[in-house]
Amino acid sequence: MKYSIGIDLGGTDIKAGLLAEDGTLSCRTVISTQVNEGARAIARRIAGVIKQVISVAGETDPPIVCSEQIIGIGLGSPGLIIAESGIVHFSPNFPGWCDIPLLDYVNGALKNRAWQAMDIPLYIDNDVNVMVLGELHHGAGVGFDNIVGLTIGTGVGGGVVIDKKVYHGNWNTAGELGHTIVKPDGRKCGCGNRGCLEAYAGARHIVERTQEQIVAGRKTCMNPEQLTPKKIADAASAGDELAREIFSETGRLVGVALTSIAHILNPQLAVIGGGISAAGEDLLFQHIRKEFNKRVMDIPGKMQIVPAKLGNDAGLVGAAMLAYNHKGKV
Amino acid sequence: MKYSIGIDLGGTDIKAGLLAEDGTLSCRTVISTQVNEGARAIARRIAGVIKQVISVAGETDPPIVCSEQIIGIGLGSPGLIIAESGIVHFSPNFPGWCDIPLLDYVNGALKNRAWQAMDIPLYIDNDVNVMVLGELHHGAGVGFDNIVGLTIGTGVGGGVVIDKKVYHGNWNTAGELGHTIVKPDGRKCGCGNRGCLEAYAGARHIVERTQEQIVAGRKTCMNPEQLTPKKIADAASAGDELAREIFSETGRLVGVALTSIAHILNPQLAVIGGGISAAGEDLLFQHIRKEFNKRVMDIPGKMQIVPAKLGNDAGLVGAAMLAYNHKGKV
Repeated sequence: MKYSIGIDLGGTDIKAGLLAEDGTLSCRTVISTQVNEGARAIARRIAGVIKQVISVAGETDPPIVCSEQIIGIGLGSPGLIIAESGIVHFSPNFPGWCDIPLLDYVNGALKNRAWQAMDIPLYIDNDVNVMVLGELHHGAGVGFDNIVGLTIGTGVGGGVVIDKKVYHGNWNTAGELGHTIVKPDGRKCGCGNRGCLEAYAGARHIVERTQEQIVAGRKTCMNPEQLTPKKIADAASAGDELAREIFSETGRLVGVALTSIAHILNPQLAVIGGGISAAGEDLLFQHIRKEFNKRVMDIPGKMQIVPAKLGNDAGLVGAAMLAYNHKGKV
Repeated sequence: MKYSIGIDLGGTDIKAGLLAEDGTLSCRTVISTQVNEGARAIARRIAGVIKQVISVAGETDPPIVCSEQIIGIGLGSPGLIIAESGIVHFSPNFPGWCDIPLLDYVNGALKNRAWQAMDIPLYIDNDVNVMVLGELHHGAGVGFDNIVGLTIGTGVGGGVVIDKKVYHGNWNTAGELGHTIVKPDGRKCGCGNRGCLEAYAGARHIVERTQEQIVAGRKTCMNPEQLTPKKIADAASAGDELAREIFSETGRLVGVALTSIAHILNPQLAVIGGGISAAGEDLLFQHIRKEFNKRVMDIPGKMQIVPAKLGNDAGLVGAAMLAYNHKGKV
């Protein structure tokens, strides 16, 4: 059996795990990221979890022999990642990072004679790209080759997988699906543009849209103070009209964006994950599909829309899949 | 020197020509399509122009030896083309055609012993896909690998080229860029959707938008009867305020669609052709670029927007390039 190590680098935690060819995750480990300690310290912590996973794997029965069975290590990171050269160009989670050669740093931190002899390759990609890759190989996208993925959470991330590999485009920004325009003169988005999907479906925007309606006099059981998407979803589940409308409108606009995406890329499947997507079929997905099916061209190979399956594991599984992909194993 | 034959199948004419590796077109020939005679008759007419091009090529000095120097034949056709199997699924230019195996018909019509011995492969793709391929290899896209193209004319067609090859997606409808949504509750599009780019920038829609403004009382030198995009462009060039606004708004919406496209695909270049694009820099392109630059993410590898270069030859050049592409020659 072959294995690869997946690392999910977040602003709070660094998670790591060992992925077997058959999709089984084991040897999980988590340490805190300590963002304030800077990039080189984070690279050392990443090297630390890598060594820990390898050490735990070596103690399994039968032991997994690192130099023979572990084909590579993949790292998923938020931000604009230059995958080819292992550089974090920019990341909202790591303030001040600008063109950080993170893979070089990690390789440097791993350096010792034994490690070099093993020569295990290290890969990096954007965390949402990696999530989509994970879903394709071991989640909701199994059996497909060309899929897109959206994570609807704080922001709206996206990823495009073509022929089972992450598609990066010209400068590693393909798949910014959250910045598909859904209303050209609409809400201001964090990216500077107006009317992006994220400016409607991102957590802060869902809250603001709700608060604006309450201020405008809409009746609701919700308290506009300290509102969260979770509270809005709960109110919607309890039958609050405004909360239901906020989610149906969000779903409608996701459907608008997915229509453009389907017409541009004609993928087989769109996988939707992230915290907001937990609102589920009744509050969200039925509205996405209804809008999409109303709008999209009627062709035999119409894109399917499904919720993500791997949940919090998608980052680890997808990161580990980077190694399989580069090895041309899958 | 290697050559391939390009055929541009239109509703009115079938054009053909011989493309040399260096991009030179020769041995051009045109016959009328005679749509009403049906698919098999059109296939025979296509076979006829192929033989004519081969015959003319054999009489050049030095003669081009078909069996040795002509590596393939490419055909560009309007409509939804299933490139892999050589089938026209549907085409607005050929009423009633449904899943016509056009390449089989053409191969059948070419059949004789001499032809079979030569074994020259035949390829087909959508006419706009082919136009973008032609621009990449011998037009405005020379030097690039990943580009998109728009033809703004009667409709708004599109094509996506990735790694110098047409990208088809799951069911041959990738690159329907004219059906990127620019206003979700906007004008009704021919495809059944609302607010597609085509519903603003297609010829009929440019005329209707102008007429609606005139009916609403806008002052203009234009006569609302028998208006055409050309007449509106002429009025705009002569300084007519309404006409200028119609074009600047059209440009603005092309810029909105291109922003979504850039965020989804991150291509290096967008090539824009078609009759409406003849309005040029002052009336159209400056507005497209201004809107795009205002909206798109500020990354180093930002997409460039340029007019198409090959004009009426793009169809022939691109169709002929299908053969080079399949041979893995380019």
